[in-house]
Amino acid sequence: MKKISLLGASGSIGTQTIDVIREHKDVFQLTAFSVGRNVDFAHQLLAEFSPEIVSVQHKEDAERLRSIAGNTKVVYGEEGLVEVAVHDADVLVNAVMGSVGLVPTLRAIETKKPIAIANKETLVTAGHLVTAAARQANVPLIPVDSEHSAIFQSLNGENYNCIEKLILTASGGSFRDKTRDDLHYVTVEDALKHPNWSMGAKITIDSATMMNKGLEVIEAHWLFGVDYENIEVLLHKESIIHSMVEFSDRSVIAQLGTPDMRVPIQYALTYPNRLPLSGKSLRLWEVGALHFEQMNLERFRCLDFAFQAGKTGGSLPTVMNAANEAAVAAFLDKKISFLQIEDLIEKAMQRHVVVHNPSLEEICTVDEETRRFVLEQI
Amino acid sequence: MKKISLLGASGSIGTQTIDVIREHKDVFQLTAFSVGRNVDFAHQLLAEFSPEIVSVQHKEDAERLRSIAGNTKVVYGEEGLVEVAVHDADVLVNAVMGSVGLVPTLRAIETKKPIAIANKETLVTAGHLVTAAARQANVPLIPVDSEHSAIFQSLNGENYNCIEKLILTASGGSFRDKTRDDLHYVTVEDALKHPNWSMGAKITIDSATMMNKGLEVIEAHWLFGVDYENIEVLLHKESIIHSMVEFSDRSVIAQLGTPDMRVPIQYALTYPNRLPLSGKSLRLWEVGALHFEQMNLERFRCLDFAFQAGKTGGSLPTVMNAANEAAVAAFLDKKISFLQIEDLIEKAMQRHVVVHNPSLEEICTVDEETRRFVLEQI
Repeated sequence: MKKISLLGASGSIGTQTIDVIREHKDVFQLTAFSVGRNVDFAHQLLAEFSPEIVSVQHKEDAERLRSIAGNTKVVYGEEGLVEVAVHDADVLVNAVMGSVGLVPTLRAIETKKPIAIANKETLVTAGHLVTAAARQANVPLIPVDSEHSAIFQSLNGENYNCIEKLILTASGGSFRDKTRDDLHYVTVEDALKHPNWSMGAKITIDSATMMNKGLEVIEAHWLFGVDYENIEVLLHKESIIHSMVEFSDRSVIAQLGTPDMRVPIQYALTYPNRLPLSGKSLRLWEVGALHFEQMNLERFRCLDFAFQAGKTGGSLPTVMNAANEAAVAAFLDKKISFLQIEDLIEKAMQRHVVVHNPSLEEICTVDEETRRFVLEQI
Repeated sequence: MKKISLLGASGSIGTQTIDVIREHKDVFQLTAFSVGRNVDFAHQLLAEFSPEIVSVQHKEDAERLRSIAGNTKVVYGEEGLVEVAVHDADVLVNAVMGSVGLVPTLRAIETKKPIAIANKETLVTAGHLVTAAARQANVPLIPVDSEHSAIFQSLNGENYNCIEKLILTASGGSFRDKTRDDLHYVTVEDALKHPNWSMGAKITIDSATMMNKGLEVIEAHWLFGVDYENIEVLLHKESIIHSMVEFSDRSVIAQLGTPDMRVPIQYALTYPNRLPLSGKSLRLWEVGALHFEQMNLERFRCLDFAFQAGKTGGSLPTVMNAANEAAVAAFLDKKISFLQIEDLIEKAMQRHVVVHNPSLEEICTVDEETRRFVLEQI
């Protein structure tokens, strides 16, 4: 049995991770998990999986849960997340959203277990710290994002020195067919309608602004050690080719499939093996055609910001990510318009004096300062 | 230096193999080769590469060549092919056309060197003998065909037990947009115009009849140990996705590129590594769209014959292949019409009493008998 710790069990990746565990109860065992405020869901998982540890966000929720938790230890807050992360499991799935996943990831690396990483903000905001720690501890970081899993699968058995280019595909999000002028009038409800993937609210907005792809570019840089000059984003509206790698001999390897996040989640849990998975086979003759377009960085400014932040490095990706998190939250709360998301990120990045090779403490300070700055602008 | 023996140096794969060797003269050395009747070309290669052995088809050509060959040993005929095949090289590239490649392949396996195999008829006509011998001698058979190289590359680092399906792509050949009625009136010149690949005459006709894909299905069965029920052919007119593998978890890995045979040839020579190769990067945004259609076995009868021959096994694939070789030669000689190719193959297959698990001798007998039968029908 493979024992699994899961950070962020109630989110989109979290619930699908649980679906995968359910499909292979003879192989996987959920031994620790965290949820945020969804105590009912925690209760349900407790009854189903009898884990050793559960973490919730608030102390009062932890106390409520303790009365019905039997032998399961109930913890809470940021310390609770760390406790789930360092729990004695065979693999940690980090599926929390936002830079809150950073400290638990660093602590989990110390315990030397493989980490299936869906928490892209952790790599964006502190990729240099996380990948250096993982390298030093010889801990594999296995991507869960469909794009990075596609690249990881395409690199199976290959020499990373032969990589010529990573090609990340992008569906274009909810607004791919709109001009910049159209974007002045879009609503939260419009933005939440993603054409191909059913995901959480924050990532769906990030898809509409193309910031999601920007975060993925930075994530890919850190996960695969590839320069930004050799990372390309390609518009591919069907989301069938999940991403590709071009090698030095011009051969391109790609991973494809019907959009189903359980595939990369399960692969991260079974790597380097595979297990059967229920679901729909890809039938390209039913799809008929796959379309590709060059990415326009003037249309999708957030992607441009991400390349700038990545190339500059230091604390600038932290600023970009924190400003984006704060701005997207404000947009979801209907406090700002869609295009103000970009403006706020740009402002935050422009005023920032870059700290080179920032420490964890400096990253946390920059992150907090940036969020405060963005809130002041609203 | 990697020493290379090359059977079939003057054909399309042969000359492109030489291009690859030329591009990496610091890595590869051509130490033995065969040509058929193209003595001028043999002479040119002799001057350029100073190999240890050269083989030509006819004795008189060998004698002519000897006078200018210096230290190079000149041999000829079927024995000459064997001498090149067993030559002390690091890898044999078998790029001859037709079942004449069978005996040299079996003899090369005995010398335990890896074989880069472009000679698909050898696997079609005697796959059970060749793969059993290779397995026993622990000799890798590395595919050179673009489709099989794509599958081989897609299987890199993977467990073959997790293969769900091999998906071979087919451009559809010169006549893909024609109905069966249209095919009554096509000429040799029409048939030789392949839309995507520049290849030899025989394989171009095989592409137009779809027999090429049929041979590839049987070849894939033997190379990858996959049942015919799990091999699918997909029409993909752009020839950008060279083939794919679906795994048990629904993940599909594909190999893509601009059509350039030097890529799979070089990969077969460098496997499991890669080397840089000049040429055009794939730019999918320039291509714009990739199209896919389900294969129609009534339209492409030769593909149906191949699945029948493969599933029946025994000596039936030998009959199909020999009948096809004889019929295509007759078509190229303008002795029969395009649709008569299919009819002759069908007749030869129908009258044949299948020999199960045929020996090399039985295969040669069946092959000769079939060719004779086809000639009698013309």
